[in-house]
Amino acid sequence: MRIVLDAMGTDDAPRAEIAGALEALSSFEDDVEIVLVGDRDTIEAGVARHGPIPDRLLIHHAADRVTAADSPASVLRKKPDSSIVVGLRLQQEGKADAFVSAGSTGAVMAGSLFILRPLPGVARPAIGTILPTSEDPCLLVDAGANVDCKPQHLVQFARLGHTYVQDLMGRPSPRIGLLNIGEEPGKGDELTLETHRLLAEQEGLNFIGNIEGRDIIRGVCDVVVCDGFVGNVLLKFYESVAAFIVGLLKRELKELGEGSQDLEHVFRVLDYAEYGGAPLLGVGGVSIICHGGSPPKAIRNALAVAAQAVRSGMVGHSARNLSRAVRAEE
Amino acid sequence: MRIVLDAMGTDDAPRAEIAGALEALSSFEDDVEIVLVGDRDTIEAGVARHGPIPDRLLIHHAADRVTAADSPASVLRKKPDSSIVVGLRLQQEGKADAFVSAGSTGAVMAGSLFILRPLPGVARPAIGTILPTSEDPCLLVDAGANVDCKPQHLVQFARLGHTYVQDLMGRPSPRIGLLNIGEEPGKGDELTLETHRLLAEQEGLNFIGNIEGRDIIRGVCDVVVCDGFVGNVLLKFYESVAAFIVGLLKRELKELGEGSQDLEHVFRVLDYAEYGGAPLLGVGGVSIICHGGSPPKAIRNALAVAAQAVRSGMVGHSARNLSRAVRAEE
Repeated sequence: MRIVLDAMGTDDAPRAEIAGALEALSSFEDDVEIVLVGDRDTIEAGVARHGPIPDRLLIHHAADRVTAADSPASVLRKKPDSSIVVGLRLQQEGKADAFVSAGSTGAVMAGSLFILRPLPGVARPAIGTILPTSEDPCLLVDAGANVDCKPQHLVQFARLGHTYVQDLMGRPSPRIGLLNIGEEPGKGDELTLETHRLLAEQEGLNFIGNIEGRDIIRGVCDVVVCDGFVGNVLLKFYESVAAFIVGLLKRELKELGEGSQDLEHVFRVLDYAEYGGAPLLGVGGVSIICHGGSPPKAIRNALAVAAQAVRSGMVGHSARNLSRAVRAEE
Repeated sequence: MRIVLDAMGTDDAPRAEIAGALEALSSFEDDVEIVLVGDRDTIEAGVARHGPIPDRLLIHHAADRVTAADSPASVLRKKPDSSIVVGLRLQQEGKADAFVSAGSTGAVMAGSLFILRPLPGVARPAIGTILPTSEDPCLLVDAGANVDCKPQHLVQFARLGHTYVQDLMGRPSPRIGLLNIGEEPGKGDELTLETHRLLAEQEGLNFIGNIEGRDIIRGVCDVVVCDGFVGNVLLKFYESVAAFIVGLLKRELKELGEGSQDLEHVFRVLDYAEYGGAPLLGVGGVSIICHGGSPPKAIRNALAVAAQAVRSGMVGHSARNLSRAVRAEE
């Protein structure tokens, strides 16, 4: 298996990428190769600082890189030699099995849509994100790829999340919750009212009904389905609140001169780096999006997620599961 | 000034209400009277347990109470003798200046709309809620009264929030932020794109532009404007995350056998009881909604908010501020 890693994505590129890739290779199974895509000289120099280049670390040159100033929609046309476009093409041409990038989310999304193409019947590929809960983590779909969704889009998010949780999180019958403002089926806005009706009709989905904002942290479901507007606001809010509270407490504990290290595992629950990247779901390939500020650990974990997605056959399962939905609606 | 307190609202009614009212009277200025509305015998017996009935504590009998089984929309018709309906009528008849209840949010909202009536030009009264931030707390509007909003509704939420923050939180030029998925004016869904355009045109509002989920906790604005669907999900999520993290830490600290009390002031930042109730904004009177699980402290703080709303003349200011918006759009 070969995983492409965009070497020019993080704020600290390519340092964080190189360190993350080396960590991954030292712990992954032997059949995994990692292809760093980006400026060859810079990458080679960066890797050399760690020692000789390992056998399973390949370097593929890309002359250009996407910056924050680039409009995501124009990247394909204007930056065909960027690490994102070059990296995604390797997968499309069958020369790699997965793509991981901490570059511009919009550019990775646009590139994945145009190069890997949506799976048959998928109107809106979506971003999944792992959220920590008081029980096992859950998957939120959509975390921001689509606003102004229609009910049938949310049904697809549910199916995509279902397969991801089965294949990547090892849960045989993922509980699907529809994020709403009340538990009763009659609660909600136009979108969630109709989505509830459609989800209740689907076959092969363990739809547990509406869930409220307060239920997420209780871990009542494995997949939280929502419009990308709500998902994006919620995700950014969660990350910031966790960081705020952890910061507050670390300061307090420092003043008290005690215990900070003992609480590290509590803080870890709230650390996004633990959960690797966010998968783009509903495209014909594996595409994992990481934070721009990802440390090597987050890159390593995203590479592990990519490897597991390939190994489990997630993309094929997604296509098959989506086709069930289409049949059910006909 | 006379504040009506629904005595039958909390899960622990009327105990929490009585204790909260007595706490309030012992600390508020002498011109405040509190009217407990509910079953007279039960209330009198409850107050008697604390000692003689204070001069400024009045009791107004209401034979009935709203329960969770009642449909909010039918309360006026089916439960005209409930403490919520009787209490709101006292304000409408000029016998009181404000209303506080920890009963059914839907019933308090419906009752306030029909009895106090929306202010002229207000299409959708909204619920404001105080959110803790790393700086001063901010006000979120709408926290759940309205889903499927239109841009002009969000502009009204901004104006209502503006006046509330001026009058109740003492900030002369409240910064208004539009909750969105990106900072640039061109980001968002149909609702926020058009709302941004309208808000930028308003006179007399300090509109700072779009804010993202992560900005709330940073305290970048005084009023967070959003649709009630997003606001409700966010609020419930915040409360639950704060409770979860505090619970996690309290357990940890207990195991470590140290420090828990020293962190009380951190936990207090996250405790909704500190912030009193949530004001219903845009109606022709003062109506404050509390959690059903409010302890006496939360009731006391909600009564303080009600008193300040009356003293500051918030309702009149709101009406005047809203009329500016109407003129600006003509």
